[in-house]
Amino acid sequence: MSDEQIVLTGIKPSGEAHLGNYIGAIEPALQMADRPETRPYFFMADYHALTTIKDQERLKHLTYDVAATWMAFGLDPDEVLFYRQSDIPELFELNWVLACFCSKGLMNRAHAYKATVEQNKEAGEDPDKGVDIGLYTYPVLMAADILMFNADLVPVGEDQIQHVEIARDVAGAFNHNYDTDLFTLPEHRVREGSTLPGLDGRKMSASYGNTIPCFADTDTLKDLCFSIETDSSPREAPKDPDDSVVFDIYEQFATDEQADDLAGRLREGIGWGDAKLELFELLDDQLEEPRRRYETLMDDKAQIDALLKDGAERARPKARELMGDIREAIGMDR
Amino acid sequence: MSDEQIVLTGIKPSGEAHLGNYIGAIEPALQMADRPETRPYFFMADYHALTTIKDQERLKHLTYDVAATWMAFGLDPDEVLFYRQSDIPELFELNWVLACFCSKGLMNRAHAYKATVEQNKEAGEDPDKGVDIGLYTYPVLMAADILMFNADLVPVGEDQIQHVEIARDVAGAFNHNYDTDLFTLPEHRVREGSTLPGLDGRKMSASYGNTIPCFADTDTLKDLCFSIETDSSPREAPKDPDDSVVFDIYEQFATDEQADDLAGRLREGIGWGDAKLELFELLDDQLEEPRRRYETLMDDKAQIDALLKDGAERARPKARELMGDIREAIGMDR
Repeated sequence: MSDEQIVLTGIKPSGEAHLGNYIGAIEPALQMADRPETRPYFFMADYHALTTIKDQERLKHLTYDVAATWMAFGLDPDEVLFYRQSDIPELFELNWVLACFCSKGLMNRAHAYKATVEQNKEAGEDPDKGVDIGLYTYPVLMAADILMFNADLVPVGEDQIQHVEIARDVAGAFNHNYDTDLFTLPEHRVREGSTLPGLDGRKMSASYGNTIPCFADTDTLKDLCFSIETDSSPREAPKDPDDSVVFDIYEQFATDEQADDLAGRLREGIGWGDAKLELFELLDDQLEEPRRRYETLMDDKAQIDALLKDGAERARPKARELMGDIREAIGMDR
Repeated sequence: MSDEQIVLTGIKPSGEAHLGNYIGAIEPALQMADRPETRPYFFMADYHALTTIKDQERLKHLTYDVAATWMAFGLDPDEVLFYRQSDIPELFELNWVLACFCSKGLMNRAHAYKATVEQNKEAGEDPDKGVDIGLYTYPVLMAADILMFNADLVPVGEDQIQHVEIARDVAGAFNHNYDTDLFTLPEHRVREGSTLPGLDGRKMSASYGNTIPCFADTDTLKDLCFSIETDSSPREAPKDPDDSVVFDIYEQFATDEQADDLAGRLREGIGWGDAKLELFELLDDQLEEPRRRYETLMDDKAQIDALLKDGAERARPKARELMGDIREAIGMDR
């Protein structure tokens, strides 16, 4: 046995990536994958996206878009096992097996579901309004995603720690029932990504409509940078970089030297327009190369397909083998 | 297009068959399969059994036992497409797709789940005590079982009409969302089976422990017939056949002539012991041939495997084709 740890990351193609996703999730995930002693598995969670994207063209587009985005930022399919969830059909058989070992109480206590119920109650609606079984039980499918490949470590945002705990619970229940150790109990690791503010100062989020897309063209990027909300203090007034969305974003993409320099000039007093221009120039420069790679990939979707298919072909034998062992354990081998 | 109707029946291997199962489910299902213009699909619902049978040896045994029972009573794999649910892995991918189109409210209103919640509440327990996600969502997997093969007709007991309605609802939601007619909307047909009383006069049911197994050996069968509860009226007293468990069971297996004959003699006055002996002799005679076939099959499990595998090989291309069409519709073709 090697000391390598299997580190598994799911990527849900549910929207075009923005800079908040890049800083908060993409960059830290790629950094974690780069660590020594790590065997990274990244998968496109297209069947998770189906819980919200029930539009053929949109789901198809997003799957390509998000795969291209991650590769443009450095995900290397030679270094990372990169596959599409829907290309591993064994996951759905495992999903059912795990459902039989997952108490309903665990799902009732899932944060996302509880939040929806609270919202419905406050609005005087049926608590389960708008909830379908896919949305309600997706943590079981996530457990299948994780357990199928014996992941040791699952990097997550704070809000997803619970999902890894559910996977552990269900894996433990199965192992105990059949007196086996077929499932590795996964551990979570909270991702060290930062939160980026959006154009209006709130957290950058698609649901607030305050995002800067990763691959906006130069003109759009410039317009967006100039649309960041700032106060009306005069050009020469000293400004606090720590209380500035422009600087918050700038800092995440700049070198320490660049950041110190802009912070100093803000404190001395430069206009917001000048600072925004610097932010635009920095982003445009930093994003030029990934944008070019993204566009090249999106112009050749067959290549994306081929890369993902190749990943699935490497991943699937492991899934087949584990599923065979599970069937034997439950009494379905033949 | 032929006018043949696809008639689909699931058989859950969750316990050894008793005469109540034979009269109430097996015989009427086989008769329905025999009708003209019918293309019968019968499947062993082994993954449904997993919701309750979490024991390797028991699940394995029951799958063989129940398959052999149905074939012993006349299920002919040359006439009926007979396969194991677990041999059609596409069902579990479809199960997930359907979960994304099944509102949680439908599951909340499912009879079996509601009954469990009521029991828990009465006992002062958490309403979801003992409910796992498999038990809670099995109607979604049933919808997949039904819709995968475009079943026109699903013979059910009264308590399962709702399951076919759920399958219709979910199929309709999918068809509507993608503006397609990929799924046939199934109809239910209530099975015309009778209810058989058990040894104690209540409905014959494994949960009451009052059953006569289909394939008890002759001595056990005799003991069981003689253990049927009767009143202590003297040998020669006139007896009402319509108020007699012995006669109720006898009637189901006898010709009309035989039944009229025994009824007449009961009214005139024969002893319970004599009537029980006649019941035993009738059952032993009627069950001799199926018992022999059952034992031959159970002595050659490889043959059961081969028959079920052959059925799966014939069924699976249909499942693959529909699943391919579904993936195209949702935006996952490639």
